[in-house]
Amino acid sequence: MRLTMRLGTRSYDIIIKRGALTHVGELCNLNRKVLIVTDDGVPAQYAETLAAQCACPVLAVVPQGEGSKSIAQYERLLGIMLEHDFGRGDAVAAMGGGVVGDLAGFVAASYMRGVEFFNCPTTTLAQIDSSIGGKVALNLDGTKNIIGAFYQPRLVVADPDTLQTLSARHINAGLAEAVKAGLIGDAGLFELFEQAQDREAVLAQIETILYRSLAVKKDVVEQDECEQGRRAVLNFGHTIGHGIESAAQLGGLYHGECVALGMLPMVQTAALRDRLRAVCQKLALPTELQYSGDEIFSYMQHDKKANNGVVTVVKVQQAGEAYLEKMPMDLLRRLVGEGVV
Amino acid sequence: MRLTMRLGTRSYDIIIKRGALTHVGELCNLNRKVLIVTDDGVPAQYAETLAAQCACPVLAVVPQGEGSKSIAQYERLLGIMLEHDFGRGDAVAAMGGGVVGDLAGFVAASYMRGVEFFNCPTTTLAQIDSSIGGKVALNLDGTKNIIGAFYQPRLVVADPDTLQTLSARHINAGLAEAVKAGLIGDAGLFELFEQAQDREAVLAQIETILYRSLAVKKDVVEQDECEQGRRAVLNFGHTIGHGIESAAQLGGLYHGECVALGMLPMVQTAALRDRLRAVCQKLALPTELQYSGDEIFSYMQHDKKANNGVVTVVKVQQAGEAYLEKMPMDLLRRLVGEGVV
Repeated sequence: MRLTMRLGTRSYDIIIKRGALTHVGELCNLNRKVLIVTDDGVPAQYAETLAAQCACPVLAVVPQGEGSKSIAQYERLLGIMLEHDFGRGDAVAAMGGGVVGDLAGFVAASYMRGVEFFNCPTTTLAQIDSSIGGKVALNLDGTKNIIGAFYQPRLVVADPDTLQTLSARHINAGLAEAVKAGLIGDAGLFELFEQAQDREAVLAQIETILYRSLAVKKDVVEQDECEQGRRAVLNFGHTIGHGIESAAQLGGLYHGECVALGMLPMVQTAALRDRLRAVCQKLALPTELQYSGDEIFSYMQHDKKANNGVVTVVKVQQAGEAYLEKMPMDLLRRLVGEGVV
Repeated sequence: MRLTMRLGTRSYDIIIKRGALTHVGELCNLNRKVLIVTDDGVPAQYAETLAAQCACPVLAVVPQGEGSKSIAQYERLLGIMLEHDFGRGDAVAAMGGGVVGDLAGFVAASYMRGVEFFNCPTTTLAQIDSSIGGKVALNLDGTKNIIGAFYQPRLVVADPDTLQTLSARHINAGLAEAVKAGLIGDAGLFELFEQAQDREAVLAQIETILYRSLAVKKDVVEQDECEQGRRAVLNFGHTIGHGIESAAQLGGLYHGECVALGMLPMVQTAALRDRLRAVCQKLALPTELQYSGDEIFSYMQHDKKANNGVVTVVKVQQAGEAYLEKMPMDLLRRLVGEGVV
């Protein structure tokens, strides 16, 4: 399956295909220097499969986890490119999850003011969401994605075969972003999760889930590439979710698990909230909050940089339809704390 | 005088006016947090003049010189913004020369994936050339501008009064970029330098020189914002000039002086070369090379990242008309060494 992100001169294809990783060289020019960025949690065979197709591959492995989205790793990767005399016509490829994509993407965005970037996501989270749309970023002093750019990849290759090496919990957490995509833009996708007998039946339809999730995101990004307005609907579940993620750092919740928890209070009818809760349970995603509302809220205040005490949140009244709403911080505090989840 | 850079949604005004620095608040919104980046070689009064017009100014002073275009200073400035809780709607302003503009511009480009950037150049070099066009950059491991972005400012305010505190040598070096602008795109501007009695007579026309130089650059940038082709003509004098600049680091030549030396071998007729030499002498710019051709060439090889031994150079046959030419590195080596300068 193929989707095309239409952004004028920055348009690109998104390939969703089992085994596609062995054919990347047929889809783009690998006959040059390519910095392949991966992490030590990703099976080495994936980066090696790509390297075997490159004329001059240079492999860079970073430690697994959010800590690698640092200025130190950024500087290190740029130094490797400089050392290998990369030019403007060379390229960077990411092989891994969201962390690797964000880091490698920002390196590609800024080396010589931008070289081509290929993204080969290997996790459900990255294949469903983070690999397309062009948001690349680093963290600074514990604040997520505070440094970055809008920089579109030249090609995205999502090979569902790579998901086989992921833990069940990782797969489930990533699927939360597909549930989100359904709720904000594709009621049928949300119903697919509802109608599947169990988690196995969901996974049997993974290619369809990837395709439909990416199609929702593609539509939004095409309308608002640099998040001047509408694109904010993609943050559904993320306002509270990010607060939970920061507060839960020691508790070790995954990003998608926090998004699941963050979506529930933003669903506007009890009926739809029950349906969402049932889908989360099917996917073994958490539906109850175990952290103090005050703690979560204090992280959210830092994160959202409210304008005069008002933040923009995303709500869903009916599956497939999201809308933006300006909300005073004190009201948001109540939503976090009132235990609607 | 006012020029408008027309780049669609990224369009902006360039104001050239004595005393304009005291009126920046009338030209843009300073009613928010503004990080004012300056260096310790720029008279503090300029940054203070701007700060007095801002609702929430935050001043950041970096050491004077190329060394401040570092990842360390980049991280420091981003940290200051984070610490002061800057949001997407806040802004960054540069007050100084090319170094400050490049550093502050890249900070603005990447904080929260981009906040508004105002540039208040205070040197001839920056007012004539580097403050417009949107190239922002850092250096890494001794390689100039290897990290960066194309990120347009929201407004440029060039106040010629600020040039009064510059040394004569600094002023002259910056004027070399105006001579370049004349040679590549405005024969009349080049003739202005020829016809002026002496350096004083040149300086009496500084506003015209700024305006016409920026108009040449504006035309080129509007045609090719991200240097896919034509924009390379702005590098006239810079191919060899950068090599000289790297080799001369200990000798302490200024950027504009190196550009003057780099232009001479790229002028295609002896008559025009004589005219250029006379203009350089009027401005006390060097016309003879004091470094070894081999040394300069080795830096150029690193800098240019030649494609299969061929680099694109800029030549001028007739004042006001530049063209691009692909040249084998060995031919370029001869140009450096044959002493045409």
